[in-house]
Amino acid sequence: MIKTVAIQGIKGSFHHIVSQNYFETPVSILPFMSFDNTVGSVLKNESDAAIMAIENSIAGSIIPNYALIDTHNLHIVGEHYLDIQHNLMALPNQSIQDIKEVYSHPMALLQCKTFFKQYPHIKLIEDKDTAEVAERIHNKQLKQVGAIASTLAAKIFKLDILAESIQTIKHNETRFVIVKQNNDEVLETEINKASIKFELDHKRGSLATILNVMSDCKLNLTKIQSLPIIETPWKYAFFVDVTFQDFQDFKKAKSIMDIMATSFKVIGQYKNAKQ
Amino acid sequence: MIKTVAIQGIKGSFHHIVSQNYFETPVSILPFMSFDNTVGSVLKNESDAAIMAIENSIAGSIIPNYALIDTHNLHIVGEHYLDIQHNLMALPNQSIQDIKEVYSHPMALLQCKTFFKQYPHIKLIEDKDTAEVAERIHNKQLKQVGAIASTLAAKIFKLDILAESIQTIKHNETRFVIVKQNNDEVLETEINKASIKFELDHKRGSLATILNVMSDCKLNLTKIQSLPIIETPWKYAFFVDVTFQDFQDFKKAKSIMDIMATSFKVIGQYKNAKQ
Repeated sequence: MIKTVAIQGIKGSFHHIVSQNYFETPVSILPFMSFDNTVGSVLKNESDAAIMAIENSIAGSIIPNYALIDTHNLHIVGEHYLDIQHNLMALPNQSIQDIKEVYSHPMALLQCKTFFKQYPHIKLIEDKDTAEVAERIHNKQLKQVGAIASTLAAKIFKLDILAESIQTIKHNETRFVIVKQNNDEVLETEINKASIKFELDHKRGSLATILNVMSDCKLNLTKIQSLPIIETPWKYAFFVDVTFQDFQDFKKAKSIMDIMATSFKVIGQYKNAKQ
Repeated sequence: MIKTVAIQGIKGSFHHIVSQNYFETPVSILPFMSFDNTVGSVLKNESDAAIMAIENSIAGSIIPNYALIDTHNLHIVGEHYLDIQHNLMALPNQSIQDIKEVYSHPMALLQCKTFFKQYPHIKLIEDKDTAEVAERIHNKQLKQVGAIASTLAAKIFKLDILAESIQTIKHNETRFVIVKQNNDEVLETEINKASIKFELDHKRGSLATILNVMSDCKLNLTKIQSLPIIETPWKYAFFVDVTFQDFQDFKKAKSIMDIMATSFKVIGQYKNAKQ
């Protein structure tokens, strides 16, 4: 049973929203300012699970988070997709013309750059976390200062939203995974997606051969990503996500791939959030 | 003939180093503060080519740069690998103990975080560009301030290196590509690598089938990356790099893949920098 969940960011952050959407029974959250510390909390048994952004439709995979999960042998026990919407917010009774400075995470500023071109009087300043700026504006009652954050952050920190959904690319979906030290949480009957990792020598056709096995075993590939293995030229690691109807098909594929590839590893077996 | 090259960052940046290493005859560089403007300079015919970081061994692919190349139909005409080494530098005649603040690009700060744990008196502050901080320290003769940048930046801006190669992961290789509006620059006899993009429906085995064609045509896969196509569920784009001995083999594979995949496109045909 997952009761305590480590998240990256504070209350009102997108990871907090995921914790509210994903779990059926309410969980307590422990906020951290880095993914390293978020994972550390799980490793110290301080949290039962961690929520981590793993890829998004604009920037692709967040490779350092794959590395964190892989290095610490954590298990993905679930996934959740969230459409990230950025909103400009400030203390009540102010207009956009009153705002002199907007603080937010570099990624949020980048995604909202075009919106701010119409307001050249606003200075954009990089900060650690989207929601933390909203909290600071509230705590210090900072006038003429704006935050770019979620509607949840506006609600928690009693700020007014001056402009909704100000990011340039309107559809900005991020995939989050829920990770644990073991995978005892997932019921076998519910499993219809898996994340695997394997290594292959740089031999012509070696990847095609493995993909043929997956196809023969009725697995559908939803993601593939090669990464050169550092310090080992001509050897590649592959991170692959597959979906399937019957868990027995995946079991069969696993036993074959385990023989064919080096360092074959199942990173997670869980329920597909997109069906 | 490439004479003027747009780079991201100023003199002394890693892109500047690549421009020095890659071209046999000296080129003039035009510095830009964003990849958007770097590419814009080529589109306006102000520069003959642009140099762009495209992937690195720590963070993986730089997806927004793939998107820039793809959207503007630019051609990759060459590639270069650079081992990124970060150095702490400051005005001469100061020790690390004298340094109070270090400014650098968020990625550089992240990669050197562990080094600075032994110097808790130093405040780390995010900035736009690694080399630009070195230039500012030089121009304003700022004491007690450090930059994290290349040895070239230290040389150009007359700073002393206080600590060499301070990034946590010592092997930090970045791949850069040289892009142009057309691919007239590359001699057919020199081509032994290509970057391609294609789309596939989410049909079981569709990727395996394409990879089988590549393998049959003697192409070696050095990179593969799937990206969901925004607004089109269950359809994926694949960015693939292949190497080959004989350009005729690639030509043959091209003609088959063009029939099998939707939106098949060659992003570049060029000389493999790793042989």
